[in-house]
Amino acid sequence: MKKKLNIAVLGTGFMGKVHSYAWRAVSKIFDLEFEPVLKVAFGTDANDLSSFVERWGYEDSSMNWKEVVSRPDIDLVDIVAPTLVHKDMAVFAAENGKNVFCEKPCCLSVSDAQAMAEACEKAGVLSYLNHNYRRIPAVSYARQLIQEGRLGEIYHFRGAYLQDWIMDPNFPLTWHLKKEFAGGGPLFDLGSHSIDLARFLVGEIDSVTAEMRTFIKDRPLPGTGAATFTAGTNQSSEKGKVTVDDAAFLLLGFENSEALGSCDVSRFAGGRRNYNYFEVYGAKGSLVWNLERLNELQFLDLTEPYATQGFRNIMLTAGDHPYMSKWWAGGHIVGYETTFVNAMSDCLTCLAKGTAPSPNFRDGEKILQVLAAADVSAREGRRVRCQEVQ
Amino acid sequence: MKKKLNIAVLGTGFMGKVHSYAWRAVSKIFDLEFEPVLKVAFGTDANDLSSFVERWGYEDSSMNWKEVVSRPDIDLVDIVAPTLVHKDMAVFAAENGKNVFCEKPCCLSVSDAQAMAEACEKAGVLSYLNHNYRRIPAVSYARQLIQEGRLGEIYHFRGAYLQDWIMDPNFPLTWHLKKEFAGGGPLFDLGSHSIDLARFLVGEIDSVTAEMRTFIKDRPLPGTGAATFTAGTNQSSEKGKVTVDDAAFLLLGFENSEALGSCDVSRFAGGRRNYNYFEVYGAKGSLVWNLERLNELQFLDLTEPYATQGFRNIMLTAGDHPYMSKWWAGGHIVGYETTFVNAMSDCLTCLAKGTAPSPNFRDGEKILQVLAAADVSAREGRRVRCQEVQ
Amino acid sequence: MKKKLNIAVLGTGFMGKVHSYAWRAVSKIFDLEFEPVLKVAFGTDANDLSSFVERWGYEDSSMNWKEVVSRPDIDLVDIVAPTLVHKDMAVFAAENGKNVFCEKPCCLSVSDAQAMAEACEKAGVLSYLNHNYRRIPAVSYARQLIQEGRLGEIYHFRGAYLQDWIMDPNFPLTWHLKKEFAGGGPLFDLGSHSIDLARFLVGEIDSVTAEMRTFIKDRPLPGTGAATFTAGTNQSSEKGKVTVDDAAFLLLGFENSEALGSCDVSRFAGGRRNYNYFEVYGAKGSLVWNLERLNELQFLDLTEPYATQGFRNIMLTAGDHPYMSKWWAGGHIVGYETTFVNAMSDCLTCLAKGTAPSPNFRDGEKILQVLAAADVSAREGRRVRCQEVQ
Amino acid sequence: MKKKLNIAVLGTGFMGKVHSYAWRAVSKIFDLEFEPVLKVAFGTDANDLSSFVERWGYEDSSMNWKEVVSRPDIDLVDIVAPTLVHKDMAVFAAENGKNVFCEKPCCLSVSDAQAMAEACEKAGVLSYLNHNYRRIPAVSYARQLIQEGRLGEIYHFRGAYLQDWIMDPNFPLTWHLKKEFAGGGPLFDLGSHSIDLARFLVGEIDSVTAEMRTFIKDRPLPGTGAATFTAGTNQSSEKGKVTVDDAAFLLLGFENSEALGSCDVSRFAGGRRNYNYFEVYGAKGSLVWNLERLNELQFLDLTEPYATQGFRNIMLTAGDHPYMSKWWAGGHIVGYETTFVNAMSDCLTCLAKGTAPSPNFRDGEKILQVLAAADVSAREGRRVRCQEVQ
Repeated sequence: MKKKLNIAVLGTGFMGKVHSYAWRAVSKIFDLEFEPVLKVAFGTDANDLSSFVERWGYEDSSMNWKEVVSRPDIDLVDIVAPTLVHKDMAVFAAENGKNVFCEKPCCLSVSDAQAMAEACEKAGVLSYLNHNYRRIPAVSYARQLIQEGRLGEIYHFRGAYLQDWIMDPNFPLTWHLKKEFAGGGPLFDLGSHSIDLARFLVGEIDSVTAEMRTFIKDRPLPGTGAATFTAGTNQSSEKGKVTVDDAAFLLLGFENSEALGSCDVSRFAGGRRNYNYFEVYGAKGSLVWNLERLNELQFLDLTEPYATQGFRNIMLTAGDHPYMSKWWAGGHIVGYETTFVNAMSDCLTCLAKGTAPSPNFRDGEKILQVLAAADVSAREGRRVRCQEVQ
Repeated sequence: MKKKLNIAVLGTGFMGKVHSYAWRAVSKIFDLEFEPVLKVAFGTDANDLSSFVERWGYEDSSMNWKEVVSRPDIDLVDIVAPTLVHKDMAVFAAENGKNVFCEKPCCLSVSDAQAMAEACEKAGVLSYLNHNYRRIPAVSYARQLIQEGRLGEIYHFRGAYLQDWIMDPNFPLTWHLKKEFAGGGPLFDLGSHSIDLARFLVGEIDSVTAEMRTFIKDRPLPGTGAATFTAGTNQSSEKGKVTVDDAAFLLLGFENSEALGSCDVSRFAGGRRNYNYFEVYGAKGSLVWNLERLNELQFLDLTEPYATQGFRNIMLTAGDHPYMSKWWAGGHIVGYETTFVNAMSDCLTCLAKGTAPSPNFRDGEKILQVLAAADVSAREGRRVRCQEVQ
Repeated sequence: MKKKLNIAVLGTGFMGKVHSYAWRAVSKIFDLEFEPVLKVAFGTDANDLSSFVERWGYEDSSMNWKEVVSRPDIDLVDIVAPTLVHKDMAVFAAENGKNVFCEKPCCLSVSDAQAMAEACEKAGVLSYLNHNYRRIPAVSYARQLIQEGRLGEIYHFRGAYLQDWIMDPNFPLTWHLKKEFAGGGPLFDLGSHSIDLARFLVGEIDSVTAEMRTFIKDRPLPGTGAATFTAGTNQSSEKGKVTVDDAAFLLLGFENSEALGSCDVSRFAGGRRNYNYFEVYGAKGSLVWNLERLNELQFLDLTEPYATQGFRNIMLTAGDHPYMSKWWAGGHIVGYETTFVNAMSDCLTCLAKGTAPSPNFRDGEKILQVLAAADVSAREGRRVRCQEVQ
Repeated sequence: MKKKLNIAVLGTGFMGKVHSYAWRAVSKIFDLEFEPVLKVAFGTDANDLSSFVERWGYEDSSMNWKEVVSRPDIDLVDIVAPTLVHKDMAVFAAENGKNVFCEKPCCLSVSDAQAMAEACEKAGVLSYLNHNYRRIPAVSYARQLIQEGRLGEIYHFRGAYLQDWIMDPNFPLTWHLKKEFAGGGPLFDLGSHSIDLARFLVGEIDSVTAEMRTFIKDRPLPGTGAATFTAGTNQSSEKGKVTVDDAAFLLLGFENSEALGSCDVSRFAGGRRNYNYFEVYGAKGSLVWNLERLNELQFLDLTEPYATQGFRNIMLTAGDHPYMSKWWAGGHIVGYETTFVNAMSDCLTCLAKGTAPSPNFRDGEKILQVLAAADVSAREGRRVRCQEVQ
């Protein structure tokens, strides 16, 4: 019989939906010690919270997150609220002895990430930062190929994360566009993912050089009922200042490696709905991947005869690909939601074994350093070493 | 409060798994009158059945399918057993007043399909045949574009469904390779899907010309514990006759249209894991789609200036694409399993409204006519009209 | 010092242009014994002929083709006139002791092809039929891989040659659309290429089953000055009967092989400008190619571990790819015209060595048999063996 | 009757071959006032020169370039020698009243480019710098779409030019790897092309931030007979210092625009044979292009309904695409060599009209400023404005 694992989900937005779906699926797909239970949900809007709880079958709900987190029956706190509140929620959860599962980006600053990590370490609870794209079979397999030496010495990481959802100048000034809530624009939202992939595949980043732009400087204030990706109704005719970047292009130097990297993130790349892309070039092989075709990985093997070399398109749906023995069958692709299921499976396995999952808040700290260094670099027009930023 | 809909699932194999997953998800993603309940599962292997029931949370189980079907608390019977038994199960279910949800291919013969349809019609129960690929947003959208006249008069349907999972001559003689169990090889398994798409997109098929091949004529008998796609252990050294096709290539004529079609199905197309592909060409536009990239649809609009015409790759992840407002967000792709969720949602909506879902057993009858005509055509070396086959 | 090879080109249309270009280039790119000399051009329109001759630097011209062919200073006759006249020109050239280089399709009938072959054999002159797509590095390399056994036993050839240049119902009734001039529609024009590739890659074709359609049955008569692909000016308001197919879909059986093939040709596939496509599936590997990306070949190697299998996209621009050591450099692609240059190089090499080039009029005969069998099959609704057609 | 234009070609390497091919073709394909005559070739190796002259039909040859350039019968000097000597040759040619056609990169320094431009301006002769990729139909068409406003305000240029031909550490120390001969590594060779495209499509570059790497610091000295892309025979066991970059990644700011750009160039990107790639994102549309598929252009139109938006792949082979009315037919692709033919056609048209071709040595100066700024930026770790560099 499986152990029940009582979960409190803090937030009812888009991420709350995806996490609820995935918590319900994880123990069906994977063979785990734990059976997650959707115990209680926290939200700030009574109507949203009520329909969220009914849809997903939460046993209880509350509009007071501290009350939720401090309940004695909660085993794991899942933070899907805006970036601004991650730190307080995570620290409070750790102080109350709860395991912490937290959406990305980790938080607003390096010091906040350190505080989150320290609180969890001190309390002896699990900390997991949900850079779920690591858990995509193609990405896990890319790392496996690199670690097996199939790429040899790495020369380049060329990452990009491009979207287009705020190109309309009338898209309102949601919290994503205010630095005090979001930490940054695509630099934080998308760049944190891309930097996490660079670290996962190549190694720690040593220095950053960056340029940033804010193309639309003022936007209409959101109306009432504005949700994460929507304008809400009764949009205001008044405008407010956008205080984050619309695009950030980074050059990356790595520790312990001469590899040269780049990472272009933008919300102004028309037609790119969710284009999280990387190329990795090494002495023995190359890899290309893109989130919009997440079930595929292109691999070129330079050790083959020159005449038959070519980027081969591997469908990551075989039983011997990471995670896929548990899903469907060869050629049967998986979607976005499964990356959360895979992440939760790994996380719960770590919890069962008492090991630290990856990435965690220490990874968050490293990523925040890169993002902060990029911010300094763009403002000061110079290469910045990550260790400068604390 | 939603109405409970008690479901009996007949079968615990790969399809049993996918259906269980999808029944659990459908009322979370879509807003339905019904809440499906996994009431009881039927299986033929006690161990398999026991672990299946525990994993998916069925309330009960049985190794007697008639007992299961005739339970008064069952509202809908979901048939995921081998093709051979579809007819008996469906007819018995209808006779017991149960709604019937049935995996494809419909059954072994035109007359069986007729019997299934008649039984359901007589009993006044719902009949649904799960050609789920209609429910893929890209495919639904393809049909929408055609129905809006964006393609004009249709000239060609070029379909293919190619796989490679039995290319190894040592792959054992599972039930899929015996005509009495499966009806046919890829002609039935894959061709039924491809023909359903041709009908869905272009219209009824009038005549068929076909060629078939069986490349590997004898295969090792399966060992004990052989499951759907696996060889089992203790594989026998004895061999038996393959009695189905390994490949079938069809030419298609349509009713009420001069369109010329083709449909190549094979299990001997190396590297094609699950390549269900079509091209549709019309006087005003063209479409291309492939199941391995199921979130994409290529569309070429011939009404544009010649110089800017090109196949455009549409990501089917927008809120105004079929089904997608209920799933994730722009650029966040969905997987194989979601096509079942979409299908169940449509089916339950029909049940709530008292309308006939599509496709149903009458569609199964039409598809079986095409498959049977193809079989005659290949054997006799001549064009066969569907109406010849009863 | 190279030997001069005096060439007479019969025709000044699109093919006359391409051939002239290629004859001028061939001895610059390849190291040949012969230096082709554009000696004399034949044309039927005085103005066209005059500007053609001036542009390409022909030494002489004539509007009497027999006069041209019988000139004692001519070594090789290059036939780029409509299909209707191929046979008379080729036979007369052979009878006058000239080597014959002839555009495809070979001629209107099997017996004409036999006559052409016999005339050349009797005269001891070279006969070359210009199915130039064999000379594309990717296609030559595909054959090389097959002959090296990299694909193992062949299971499938899936060919298509799709275009869209006559979809407009007002496209005029040029000679291509009259059976007595062209032999057939895409069946002859495109199908001859596709069938040649099937034979080149897989082997001789034994039986054919086909369906054909003519979607636009009447078209405006062409105006004055109508050239190959153009309507001319003063297009007539009168209409005439289209007497060829607009599309032909074929199923193919092979000699000495159980391989099952298909070949769909059409001029009604919108957006397909020049889509000559094939897939070849074998027991050990698969190939995919398309003329619109003629420098690329996709290859999947089934002998690799399953998890790293994938269609690899080989750029055919390396020095060790066929023909490419003579062209540019790695990654520098070649265009349509180079396929003629390669073909002429091979042809002149055969001439120097006294060997028979390939394909020649005997190949033409085999191809005509398949096309004629397809025509019978479509009309009679039955499988036709090639040997039935003489 | 066309005017003869006597050409002296300085150099017999790979570029000498391509230029010779293209000069022979240009007046056949395009309708020009001039007929180019391959008058005289200069080379430094007597054997190479002799076979070069014979193959391409030059009337004369010389191993003294000044003698060649100062011949009174020469109208145009075509410089295809190593970058090091471009300046002296161009200036001397201008001083002798010759028109100058020069391969890229322009020269070693901004001041050299200024000297070249001034010499031509003073002498009133034509100066043309051969960034031939502008003359690719897809690239010309991309610019046309941008200038027609189809992209709206430009937000991003994302360029890359990636190759892999020197990844082998035993590839010898050819002149390309010595700063005094080549000016730089891929920064000069590939970056000059990519920067030219950024300027052509978006506008002048204002500031640059760059990082550079040299992965292989010492290489074997080349053997005797080492040619441009080959190791020669008798390769030395002695090694020498590589004094150029192996990779350079740039961030770009533009004059008169907030657009943010990037440009990654490398010779260490395995599998990228000749991957000159760009993406341009604007408020109304997006473009993607790649030299390895030079006949295609991807365009996404943001003014279309969201649900049917998608990157469309335009084949640039229609009569109404730039240059293509003169080449073959729809769907018949062109190769690398045709970009030289197109460039020469434009250049000779300017010569006939007495207008300045583009790009010319003033463009060379601008490009050199960007490359020099990148060099300073990488060394000093800071953003550099182009105007700082003289």
